Amino acid sequence: MKNIKLDIQYDGTDYHGWQIQKNAVTIQGIMTKAVSDLCGSDTQIIGCGRTDSGVHAESYICNFLSDISIPPEKIPFALNHRLPDDIICKSAEYMPFIFHSKNSAAAKTYVYNVYNSSFPNVFNQKYSWHIKGNLNINNMILASKSFLGEHDFIGFASSGFSVKTTIRTIYSLNISQNDKMIVLSVTGNGFLYNMVRIIAGTLVFVGLGKINPHDMTEILNSKDRTRAGITAPPNGLFLKEVFYEKK
Amino acid sequence: MKNIKLDIQYDGTDYHGWQIQKNAVTIQGIMTKAVSDLCGSDTQIIGCGRTDSGVHAESYICNFLSDISIPPEKIPFALNHRLPDDIICKSAEYMPFIFHSKNSAAAKTYVYNVYNSSFPNVFNQKYSWHIKGNLNINNMILASKSFLGEHDFIGFASSGFSVKTTIRTIYSLNISQNDKMIVLSVTGNGFLYNMVRIIAGTLVFVGLGKINPHDMTEILNSKDRTRAGITAPPNGLFLKEVFYEKK
Repeated sequence: MKNIKLDIQYDGTDYHGWQIQKNAVTIQGIMTKAVSDLCGSDTQIIGCGRTDSGVHAESYICNFLSDISIPPEKIPFALNHRLPDDIICKSAEYMPFIFHSKNSAAAKTYVYNVYNSSFPNVFNQKYSWHIKGNLNINNMILASKSFLGEHDFIGFASSGFSVKTTIRTIYSLNISQNDKMIVLSVTGNGFLYNMVRIIAGTLVFVGLGKINPHDMTEILNSKDRTRAGITAPPNGLFLKEVFYEKK
Repeated sequence: MKNIKLDIQYDGTDYHGWQIQKNAVTIQGIMTKAVSDLCGSDTQIIGCGRTDSGVHAESYICNFLSDISIPPEKIPFALNHRLPDDIICKSAEYMPFIFHSKNSAAAKTYVYNVYNSSFPNVFNQKYSWHIKGNLNINNMILASKSFLGEHDFIGFASSGFSVKTTIRTIYSLNISQNDKMIVLSVTGNGFLYNMVRIIAGTLVFVGLGKINPHDMTEILNSKDRTRAGITAPPNGLFLKEVFYEKK
């Protein structure tokens, strides 16, 4: 028996998120079928976490146990033949049995794209949130500093999921601009339900002048969801990288 | 009566090119409907040239004559309400009557994207040509120099369109690399049918070692279509900019 780790990429537009569901097409559902077909027996796929309906992944890590004898470097080709165009396996490797895509994850980086222009762009509208009003990026950067470090992010979470604690640590939150595209990149040890999308929605509200950047720390400390901005739409969000500690 | 110039952007994936056709959905067909609806009468749209089925445009210029009284800055909003998501009007302006999108065009820039990687990328597969084999970019740059200047490009054209002359001038042909994406950018005073796609296909053949870069000038001078590379697929091609002389 081997523990096989996969690095996959997907366009989440046409999927109801990662997690397998009975009456909806999900990434985990498609992956389970493809891997089970490859292995010749029902195989369970362990994912690094849930992603919402419409959210994308540049690099999503999952793993499965199997006794297949295909060399790992050939697994991506074998899987890609069984996958639709919008899900691609980029690499596969054998891992120690202790490795678990979700439980072993030490940190994740998410990217959120905001397209700031009078008109949408046909080439990125599936991959960014279109904001017409002029965004003050300096105020967004100023406000972003409040999120750094360890905080109780309960005011930046949607209800509906139970977690042991709502305390999370943000290691970095960078905002960069490339012409009309504003890219938020956030790395943390974990994220609550919708947390990145609420941070993105709140920073856009700061950029639009609806929230004062100097109030951001107080809003975060208030733990009051109604004081943060809206939940940004899913299509601008990408899981960029999952980090595991070297053991 | 006014002569109104439009700058539009489109994702050509789902269209049978620019030119209006009876039994196919085309950009010109969609634009004609939208503009006619806006003007309240049948209106003919003059385009800056044909683009093939599946080819995209960052900036495509077209114009039409109308006596509508909407201020030009409001035309894009009014048109975008009447256009599908994959066609966007970015700007409109009044022009002298002598202006003609095609006949007044002095030069055009096309971009061709080649994605050079073992696996395709879900986010750019509609907008690039995926090449698995390792491309020698230095040889591609070396070969690209042969195209500069005035040449008879009949060996780099598909048959099927009649033109007065097959002589064209290439002002610049730049090849740049950004991680796995290789971008060919070519500016010329005009292009024959499929010319940019054949240049792209030929330069990729050079990159793969199928054509010697030192043979490129001789291949061009041979005027023999069979000595050039294949016609690269349409989805990697973008009309980037159309240039008009200031009068």
